[in-house]
Amino acid sequence: MLKAEHTTPDYAAMLRVAIEEARAGLAEGGIPIGAAIFRADGSLVSRGHNRRVQQDDPSIHGETDAFRRAGRQKSYRDLIMVTTLAPCFYCSGLVRQFGFQTVVVGESRTFQGGIEELREQGINVIDLDSAECVEMLTGYISARPEVWNEDIDVAE
Amino acid sequence: MLKAEHTTPDYAAMLRVAIEEARAGLAEGGIPIGAAIFRADGSLVSRGHNRRVQQDDPSIHGETDAFRRAGRQKSYRDLIMVTTLAPCFYCSGLVRQFGFQTVVVGESRTFQGGIEELREQGINVIDLDSAECVEMLTGYISARPEVWNEDIDVAE
Repeated sequence: MLKAEHTTPDYAAMLRVAIEEARAGLAEGGIPIGAAIFRADGSLVSRGHNRRVQQDDPSIHGETDAFRRAGRQKSYRDLIMVTTLAPCFYCSGLVRQFGFQTVVVGESRTFQGGIEELREQGINVIDLDSAECVEMLTGYISARPEVWNEDIDVAE
Repeated sequence: MLKAEHTTPDYAAMLRVAIEEARAGLAEGGIPIGAAIFRADGSLVSRGHNRRVQQDDPSIHGETDAFRRAGRQKSYRDLIMVTTLAPCFYCSGLVRQFGFQTVVVGESRTFQGGIEELREQGINVIDLDSAECVEMLTGYISARPEVWNEDIDVAE
């Protein structure tokens, strides 16, 4: 269910930014998951990517990195969280706690995370089912399964 | 339901460390919520506190701070997350995602967060109902309601 905006936000363009972040992470030797936060008018608030490997910090998933880089915001209700991969339970909790109403995910084939629960909570989750996102991440998982398992699959 | 350890972990002693962290945060001008991560044998893995105000970073709740300071761990299943206040949805998601099986909270009167859902997921949540924790936080909320509302109540 899209909000009644004058124009539908260009979610595919937003995802491009998150994909750029994922590729930047990959180039750094990290897990290729990227995220970005936008206003409803399409303007960028912040962008980030998973930095577990780079900073040796398991809390820095892509969504959390973008969130941190957004600084303190008065409200998140009108902001859009965009991520190359369905957010894990941690980052789904971030979305819920801080009141984001819209989440755009590049894909949820590789990992579903908490998107069903987000939908149950009335949050608008838009899944763009991007083949590029699937290929980028599955390629990494094939190459570095131990890092992936450590990162996101630990609770499975 | 406590695990079948030889001896029951000394949860009250663990909470003391989290309270010390909360008081350290308060002394820095921050929100007095502290956390610590312990092994089942009572040895300390890491400790941290809310640093929203100090670092201008809304992601650094007490639990996330302690988690970051623990570095990359192979598994969290045998670790105990101890926090002065019931974890919010974000930090409850952290607990769930990374597979902590035990959470000790100082209190859940001021804020319930996600502890009911954690219990539904089979996670052992031990609520010590500490008057000291309640007084420390409610005192802060009375003095600085705007910071509290920004921090944790945004999604309510």
